[in-house]
Amino acid sequence: MAFLYESHRQRVLLQSGGAAQALAHEVQRRGAQRVMVIAAGTQAPTAAQITAGLPVVLRWDEVVMHVPLQVAQRARAAAGACDADLLISVGGGSSTGLAKAVALSTGLPIVSVPTTYAGSEATNVWGLTEGASKTTGVAEVVLPQCVIYDASLTTSLPVATSVASGLNALAHCIDSMWAPNRNPVADALAAEGIAAITAGLPEIVADPAGLRGRERALTAAYLAAVAFASAGSGLHHKICHVLGGRYNLPHAQTHAVILPYVLAFNGSVAHGAERRIAGALGAGSALAGIAALYEALDAPRALRQLGFPPDAVAEAAAALLPFVPPSNPRPVTVEDLRRLLAAACEGADPGVLQETVTITREPR
Amino acid sequence: MAFLYESHRQRVLLQSGGAAQALAHEVQRRGAQRVMVIAAGTQAPTAAQITAGLPVVLRWDEVVMHVPLQVAQRARAAAGACDADLLISVGGGSSTGLAKAVALSTGLPIVSVPTTYAGSEATNVWGLTEGASKTTGVAEVVLPQCVIYDASLTTSLPVATSVASGLNALAHCIDSMWAPNRNPVADALAAEGIAAITAGLPEIVADPAGLRGRERALTAAYLAAVAFASAGSGLHHKICHVLGGRYNLPHAQTHAVILPYVLAFNGSVAHGAERRIAGALGAGSALAGIAALYEALDAPRALRQLGFPPDAVAEAAAALLPFVPPSNPRPVTVEDLRRLLAAACEGADPGVLQETVTITREPR
Repeated sequence: MAFLYESHRQRVLLQSGGAAQALAHEVQRRGAQRVMVIAAGTQAPTAAQITAGLPVVLRWDEVVMHVPLQVAQRARAAAGACDADLLISVGGGSSTGLAKAVALSTGLPIVSVPTTYAGSEATNVWGLTEGASKTTGVAEVVLPQCVIYDASLTTSLPVATSVASGLNALAHCIDSMWAPNRNPVADALAAEGIAAITAGLPEIVADPAGLRGRERALTAAYLAAVAFASAGSGLHHKICHVLGGRYNLPHAQTHAVILPYVLAFNGSVAHGAERRIAGALGAGSALAGIAALYEALDAPRALRQLGFPPDAVAEAAAALLPFVPPSNPRPVTVEDLRRLLAAACEGADPGVLQETVTITREPR
Repeated sequence: MAFLYESHRQRVLLQSGGAAQALAHEVQRRGAQRVMVIAAGTQAPTAAQITAGLPVVLRWDEVVMHVPLQVAQRARAAAGACDADLLISVGGGSSTGLAKAVALSTGLPIVSVPTTYAGSEATNVWGLTEGASKTTGVAEVVLPQCVIYDASLTTSLPVATSVASGLNALAHCIDSMWAPNRNPVADALAAEGIAAITAGLPEIVADPAGLRGRERALTAAYLAAVAFASAGSGLHHKICHVLGGRYNLPHAQTHAVILPYVLAFNGSVAHGAERRIAGALGAGSALAGIAALYEALDAPRALRQLGFPPDAVAEAAAALLPFVPPSNPRPVTVEDLRRLLAAACEGADPGVLQETVTITREPR
């Protein structure tokens, strides 16, 4: 049971309705005097509200998905020009990602106020895109030094987006269970994250303006991101990244659709992981738990509904094969991938991917 | 569900039989050239073996329980005199504690190789004693930057010591569940730690020279320490610290004896914690799980067997009252403490401390 686990220095606060006060406290204890606030235009009013009274020298609202390098360079120049000494990001993964890009070149500390369940705030991973090409890396300086979760800022996140974003966090948790650097800390946080998502998402669907489901989903997003960043990408994420890139599929929805199929495929041989996932889902089996959760959430089920062309299954399977992690608990052939994609394309029963064990020399 | 969780930067490796290689790798990647090795005399051969070939400038073997200030000052002076640039501690909590004391004044980084389940290596807490007075504090610089767990170094730890040390880790986990700064990360790690102890300690008893039980116990020690350092001291630890100090009782054994009584007392009202603990113990109830584990381990059961004088129950209860955490899930009176201590003194059934709910207007 050898493992390597690396933890990082971060202060994580959850306090619904408390973002403004917590930000003021953070700015004060750091002695920050020149704050740059990064928030997409849609989040600008929220950001303005929770940063009122702070020594803000710049409000930056050019935030673009996947952090294009040119946007990052403009934001970096602006941070330098205004002599900022602290970055505050308010928003989802794109805002956090831009703050990380600025921190990467300037060394400025980040205080992050996430408003989705993307989880980027909990990792030291940065990403930049140039045209169709994405570069990612790991650097201690991009890890937000403080994360402030305030569920009251997230109640306007639409239910469908909340569900997709939450299932993305669920995929982080489940894929951690058989990822290359799987370890006991990641396992524990992932199981806790699964339980929080399983409780939280149905609460959000039932009461989108309520805080409890949102708090659980934010907590799950944090746990999921720490687990995933530590354990690394498993089979599920490799599949989703290749599919997303080749067929321009929506990120969170693709994760939601693929997850039950990878769970069926791997869970039938990774018994410890399957038991842990089932327990966290509160179900007799992991597959039954996922099915019940998806039913409750009306989650997306079929790749073809997301724009994946059914006649691309064979080609996609071949493209996926080189990305299969060698550490995957079940060997993966191109035929396995073809069957997995064919089932996911149509939203078929994931159970068909379970390994069937032929018991010989036993009376029937 | 507000919470504050602070994580710390640390590299944690478990690799049985791999300590020497992992140490060489750490020394190399840090460019350390003048290593001070801290290990008690009994651990000196082990320490010499796993640090052979490293650029060691000093081997320090004066290691005393509770880190007396004078010992710390001698070690600090020696570290300065030999111009050490890295501390490697090999041993239990006392060796780690001395390395922390040296780091506190010198700023030197620590690489820790723990050989018990004390867990000090996973926290930023330091302690120093002057006569009967103990000072503790928190400082980032004392957190070992790297921890190397090698179960092969622990197979000579006697079974009784292993059990006591492991049950001390179990107490860290369980007390985290209702500690003042309880949070979802501590909860998850504590549950994982309970499960690892529950699996690991019986394996150590059955096969003291085997690695698997030892690996589980080391993993549990780490999880327990992180959870406990984050969540803070709950009722259990307050009771044990006061009793240990006043009546000079053995540390780990006192924890083992008191634990079922606090679990019975708090668990009967903290239902979420009780369910989580029961699940991690793999039992229908937390109390039943603890009873089965204690039976399997032949754990100590009665305070009087540890030297606690039975006629001191009332006095001890009065002395404990001011230390009860205000956040304890069940209010605690001096009479409650008296009953708890009286039961623990004799090793009586902990169930007598459960809150009995009187159901009225129900037919009997």
